Amino acid sequence: MSKPETSLMSRLVSLAKRRGFVYPASEIYGGLNGFWDFGPLGVLLKNNLRDRWWHDMVECPPLGPDGKPLSIVGLDSSIIQHPRTWEASGHVGGFADLMVDCRETQSRYRADHIQCIEVFYEKAGETKSLGLLSAMEGDEFEAALAKKAKRLIQKAGGGELMPVDLKAAVLFTNMAKDQQVLVIGPDAETAGTLTEPRMFNLMFSSHAGVFQDEDSKVYLRPETAQGIFLQYKNIIDTSRVKPPFGVAQVGKSFRNEVTPRNFIFRSREFEQMEMEFFCAPEDGMMWYEFWVAERMRWWESVGCRKENLYRHIIPEDELSHYSKGTSDIEYRWPFTTPNFGELEGVAYRTDYDLKQHSEFSKQTLDYIDQEGGRRYVPHVVEPASGLTRGVLLLLAEGYQYDESRASPEWLKIKPSLAPIKIGIFPLVNKDGMPEVAEKLYMDLRRTYTCQYDAKQSIGKRYARMDEAGTPFCITVDGDTLKDQTVTIRNRDTATQERVSLDKVRAYIAEKMVE
Amino acid sequence: MSKPETSLMSRLVSLAKRRGFVYPASEIYGGLNGFWDFGPLGVLLKNNLRDRWWHDMVECPPLGPDGKPLSIVGLDSSIIQHPRTWEASGHVGGFADLMVDCRETQSRYRADHIQCIEVFYEKAGETKSLGLLSAMEGDEFEAALAKKAKRLIQKAGGGELMPVDLKAAVLFTNMAKDQQVLVIGPDAETAGTLTEPRMFNLMFSSHAGVFQDEDSKVYLRPETAQGIFLQYKNIIDTSRVKPPFGVAQVGKSFRNEVTPRNFIFRSREFEQMEMEFFCAPEDGMMWYEFWVAERMRWWESVGCRKENLYRHIIPEDELSHYSKGTSDIEYRWPFTTPNFGELEGVAYRTDYDLKQHSEFSKQTLDYIDQEGGRRYVPHVVEPASGLTRGVLLLLAEGYQYDESRASPEWLKIKPSLAPIKIGIFPLVNKDGMPEVAEKLYMDLRRTYTCQYDAKQSIGKRYARMDEAGTPFCITVDGDTLKDQTVTIRNRDTATQERVSLDKVRAYIAEKMVE
Repeated sequence: MSKPETSLMSRLVSLAKRRGFVYPASEIYGGLNGFWDFGPLGVLLKNNLRDRWWHDMVECPPLGPDGKPLSIVGLDSSIIQHPRTWEASGHVGGFADLMVDCRETQSRYRADHIQCIEVFYEKAGETKSLGLLSAMEGDEFEAALAKKAKRLIQKAGGGELMPVDLKAAVLFTNMAKDQQVLVIGPDAETAGTLTEPRMFNLMFSSHAGVFQDEDSKVYLRPETAQGIFLQYKNIIDTSRVKPPFGVAQVGKSFRNEVTPRNFIFRSREFEQMEMEFFCAPEDGMMWYEFWVAERMRWWESVGCRKENLYRHIIPEDELSHYSKGTSDIEYRWPFTTPNFGELEGVAYRTDYDLKQHSEFSKQTLDYIDQEGGRRYVPHVVEPASGLTRGVLLLLAEGYQYDESRASPEWLKIKPSLAPIKIGIFPLVNKDGMPEVAEKLYMDLRRTYTCQYDAKQSIGKRYARMDEAGTPFCITVDGDTLKDQTVTIRNRDTATQERVSLDKVRAYIAEKMVE
Repeated sequence: MSKPETSLMSRLVSLAKRRGFVYPASEIYGGLNGFWDFGPLGVLLKNNLRDRWWHDMVECPPLGPDGKPLSIVGLDSSIIQHPRTWEASGHVGGFADLMVDCRETQSRYRADHIQCIEVFYEKAGETKSLGLLSAMEGDEFEAALAKKAKRLIQKAGGGELMPVDLKAAVLFTNMAKDQQVLVIGPDAETAGTLTEPRMFNLMFSSHAGVFQDEDSKVYLRPETAQGIFLQYKNIIDTSRVKPPFGVAQVGKSFRNEVTPRNFIFRSREFEQMEMEFFCAPEDGMMWYEFWVAERMRWWESVGCRKENLYRHIIPEDELSHYSKGTSDIEYRWPFTTPNFGELEGVAYRTDYDLKQHSEFSKQTLDYIDQEGGRRYVPHVVEPASGLTRGVLLLLAEGYQYDESRASPEWLKIKPSLAPIKIGIFPLVNKDGMPEVAEKLYMDLRRTYTCQYDAKQSIGKRYARMDEAGTPFCITVDGDTLKDQTVTIRNRDTATQERVSLDKVRAYIAEKMVE
């Protein structure tokens, strides 16, 4: 099993496009940076992950420490909410990135993504400095730096670039002001053209109503969570829930990322799966630990290998002022490997959000505990994960490369989550085989997402299904007409079994629990 | 079965709030006009309708005229697309309402919603005119008109309002300009303060990227359909579909409606279920008729009575210039009854959209039919329905009032679409009953959305479930412990049957096909 030359990420992006998982949005218009569309296979995969999360949260919540199922209800709140929401949540004031502009090129950069380093060259046996060069951090950093250095050397009349010790690079934001003014901007050729870093809010804004003024300004939510806090009171009043209980929501959020990157990992429009778990203040730490463990278990249950998951406990001095504990559940992404990057955050947010909304709305958001004879603002534990990122995880985790197979690239996705469950093929498109295969298709499609395919050689059809992550392929062949059996091919082993037509449903149902 | 005093719509809004189907968005901040949140029951109902549509379109598409299943794939495209999209689609230029401003009150109105009528009063035996009064059309028109007339009479020194013949009212937009200047605005007290009607675009706009200028301007999609046209080529290239085939999508759309109204019928943020069906040009009219019939059948299949559906064929002289046929599938809404209003539109759009995008993007969007040896731009039939409106239909259609029941208001929703399928109750919360009921709950919740409830009298619990539209309530009582049977109460008949515990699953499964 040899590996191809290109990076795993570029192979994933290419497979995703080629098989209709993910396309660049508005591609016929040249694309739109940070926006992606989910194609026929991608939307099925994403829906399956969404439905699994919803099932495991809302329809069939986990058992609590007392062995009884937790109480969790669903919600679907608007993307656009009253603008006061985002003042209370702190997003209007604080949800921002530090940006710098370049006066020479009119470009704008995220200040904490600019790496700076002094670069030297040799000319006639003499070592000379090119100055403090900069480039955007990431895979391209070294290449961009070298390219620029060479241009500057040429401009200076030639010479030989000296080796650069990349470890000495410093982030622009970590430099003193008197050093920052010496930096040559990422696309500039002279020093001192970068401005001081300024804040840039990440929320998309718009206007609701017929007047376009400050009063009508609204924002696209940067997270689904706040919608839950806004309806906390209505839910308490109408749903008969009482702490501890959760409110779960799946939906789109928008962040005007300055540098969207890593495919669908950091896009400007994305989907979240968030749950707010409301509990008595004294139980907060217990539920925080409960949910970290539960959510890690869940990611394993959808097919993530344990060794690719990591609990990153945010150190106390880096916690938000209101949080008593936050853990990032990290995954070993292709672009972070061997390190990990954020997949889900589990935060014990105390009573911060409800108190903020209570203050800003002048509404009482206490819970009256009649049995306990007390009144309190519930504490909140929030497991907040990305559905879009979850799809990327399933693709990255499922990606297999094996040159010995008809399709070297194939996807190992759990049967229950696979976009297409069953491919159904007549071996040849005649001799009564299509009729039997079509009949089987008409029956199985009532329960499973199936694809009927009568084109090309059977090997090519298997290969196509392997790339799509389809766990089972059923072929109707010459023997079927004689003995009423079909072959069922297993994606992972690439082997076939003969199964009697009347046992096909039971066979599939048994495997589908995976 | 007597009827309560208030209108069906206000009872629906009230029940929806009280039972957690639909809440006003951002209610703790005073709400946001035109935005609604779906509560715990509402999100379940909406998801069920969404999943049914998706199943019937994508997973298990209908059979075509040849008796074979149609080929339809799914898509989930971004809400934000390249702005050229909306120039090509005509939304930048044309998607607008006529608005008038009032110079006296600084209010803005949709010109085609202002009704005008001359009103008279009697004073000392003499008939006098109050002038051309106006008010917004709809349920409140008469009341608003009377209120205003009384104020003007008082201002004029008193008198008696004379009966108004509402049939004589004329829409502002239908009046000649020299008449328009005589109108007293809906909130004004003097004539001539309304401006001439001007266009107002209904798309929400924002900016993507770090600069906020014309180049970075983007729009929130006003319909999901255009995202399908943008990916038509990628889908053809990667999914092995060929005409006739469909691409289906469910998702949010945004329209900055000037006067959002009728609850969730016309809101600013809403969900659509749209499908574009691509076919050979000569088959367009056939597929148009096919989809009108199919979609009407579908609405019946989710529980809409035939007599409440109406096919409104748009007359030829009112068709968009590119359409060869459009039908609105209308429903008898509570606010239109005895008339009908739009639920879904089925439009034969010819090759207009693909040609527009081809022209604006300079990409070839032809289909090369290798078997037929020709090249053409497919024609398109579009069944475009509202998921949000579909939920309103299920609530309106399901609403029942019967004073003889514990809960006079109850919802008759098909079991397969009901938010909660089964209520599970121990008759009393002791004597071993909770243990049996919990065990049953733990089993059934793996398959159905269930609610376990041990509080209050059994009658109150049934009543609560009736209001939620829950078709079945299972009660564990004293006999259960003796003979292993439970009662299953049917929502529609309010009668109970005793069923053996080991037959409960089969009993429910059989009813759930409805």
